[in-house]
Amino acid sequence: MALDLNAVGKPFKPTTFEYTDREVMLYALGIGAGPEELDFTYEKNLKVYPTFAVIPAFAALASLGQVLTFNWAMLLHGEQRIELKAPIPTSGKLTTVGAVRAIYDKGSGALVIVDAETKDEGGKVLLVNTFGAFIRGEGGFGGERGPSGPRNVPPQRAPDATVEMQTRPDQALLYRLSGDRNPLHADPDFAKMAGFDRPILHGLCTFGHAGRAVLSAFCNNDPARLKAFEVRFSGVVFPGDTIITDMWKESDTQIIVQSKTQRGDVVLGSAAATIAP
Amino acid sequence: MALDLNAVGKPFKPTTFEYTDREVMLYALGIGAGPEELDFTYEKNLKVYPTFAVIPAFAALASLGQVLTFNWAMLLHGEQRIELKAPIPTSGKLTTVGAVRAIYDKGSGALVIVDAETKDEGGKVLLVNTFGAFIRGEGGFGGERGPSGPRNVPPQRAPDATVEMQTRPDQALLYRLSGDRNPLHADPDFAKMAGFDRPILHGLCTFGHAGRAVLSAFCNNDPARLKAFEVRFSGVVFPGDTIITDMWKESDTQIIVQSKTQRGDVVLGSAAATIAP
Repeated sequence: MALDLNAVGKPFKPTTFEYTDREVMLYALGIGAGPEELDFTYEKNLKVYPTFAVIPAFAALASLGQVLTFNWAMLLHGEQRIELKAPIPTSGKLTTVGAVRAIYDKGSGALVIVDAETKDEGGKVLLVNTFGAFIRGEGGFGGERGPSGPRNVPPQRAPDATVEMQTRPDQALLYRLSGDRNPLHADPDFAKMAGFDRPILHGLCTFGHAGRAVLSAFCNNDPARLKAFEVRFSGVVFPGDTIITDMWKESDTQIIVQSKTQRGDVVLGSAAATIAP
Repeated sequence: MALDLNAVGKPFKPTTFEYTDREVMLYALGIGAGPEELDFTYEKNLKVYPTFAVIPAFAALASLGQVLTFNWAMLLHGEQRIELKAPIPTSGKLTTVGAVRAIYDKGSGALVIVDAETKDEGGKVLLVNTFGAFIRGEGGFGGERGPSGPRNVPPQRAPDATVEMQTRPDQALLYRLSGDRNPLHADPDFAKMAGFDRPILHGLCTFGHAGRAVLSAFCNNDPARLKAFEVRFSGVVFPGDTIITDMWKESDTQIIVQSKTQRGDVVLGSAAATIAP
């Protein structure tokens, strides 16, 4: 059954996310921060990792079913972009409204782009998420292919910075307590049915590790300096793997990013961070 | 200033603890469980570690200030006992009422014993906690010394089971998200002021590790089989240390327990678990 192209532009029902500093610290631990990053893992003078932006907006992706009917087992989280309009508070009640921006025909599947805007209680826009959901088997409807070709390609020189982070065997079990309880990341039987030897790490957990790498290497760990971060997920990370993030500073404001595992395969690419100089 | 002995028997105001399976899994990760303990760390067929009993009742210890005036910086958590009257649900709204049972004069300090009973919404008693709080500098008031002498002494033979668990550098940062935010367990400056080189692990986190050891070694990981567990805290564990728990089966229902670190010092002793045979 083809996707309903009329879904484009129809806003989802608003979703609300209420949180305290506990969620902020739990998220930081979930993306591998620890005693070396007390600014993010301990409530005194607490800072919020910019990639926490995906957490209040996560329900917007789950709301996609309000406007489109498809088999959720066929959905892969393919792309993610965040844009920070203002610092993320350490607690609050945020409201997110998402909408499908485009449905592209990629042949083997459809790429559904969802924009989601998150506001604070005063109505101020704090952050914008763009999710790219690839839905296998829903292509071939004769639609536009959308933007394609290489993006944020690493230059042909050694990285300006490389950060290695070893994930823990329980990394996915911890990360999922921040909201994404897809059993693919916890349940060995479910993972096998989905074609994996064992549960895999959330793409957005890898995204968080890569964001931490950019923040420490180029932003002096100041969250206010990371303005935007966009990535494509291109491979599988297992809990316990090491995430090796290479970064190239292309200008005062642009960092090209690529993450591999210790096996050498690129798991996060076509990626760039926009930073304040 | 001497402690007010009239505090004995006066119930504290009830405290309520509302939780979901998220708190149950967060606690399990906080005491070191992971992918090998999915029954406790993943919501499918979720089981609750018996030592979670301390979490809903923790606020009762904090309520001690309602009936006694003292310097909280002088308080050490010396002893802990839990008694499980019924299985702990994976979510719920529990109410706890605590009261001081006794104030003993230990010379260098006072030992304040607090009993706390936790009920479900139907009024059924699920669990009983007994906290032993040693308050330095509050002894010498001519009161009873209370029970003394050795208790739950390990027999002179090799343990019937030994379980080693390596804690993680971020163990205390994770455990404290279950409710006990004493900065002693996170803040290097605070830890130094208290006389430690760096932040130390919560006694109740060590307690949870020891409880996991008993449950796996003698209860086939069935929480319903652990009926009671009592310990004294006698040493310091740093996050990253290995907790080595020796256990002796003294009868069908009694397990003597002692935990050391890799340095060989006993950190949890005078300890016994009561189990269903």
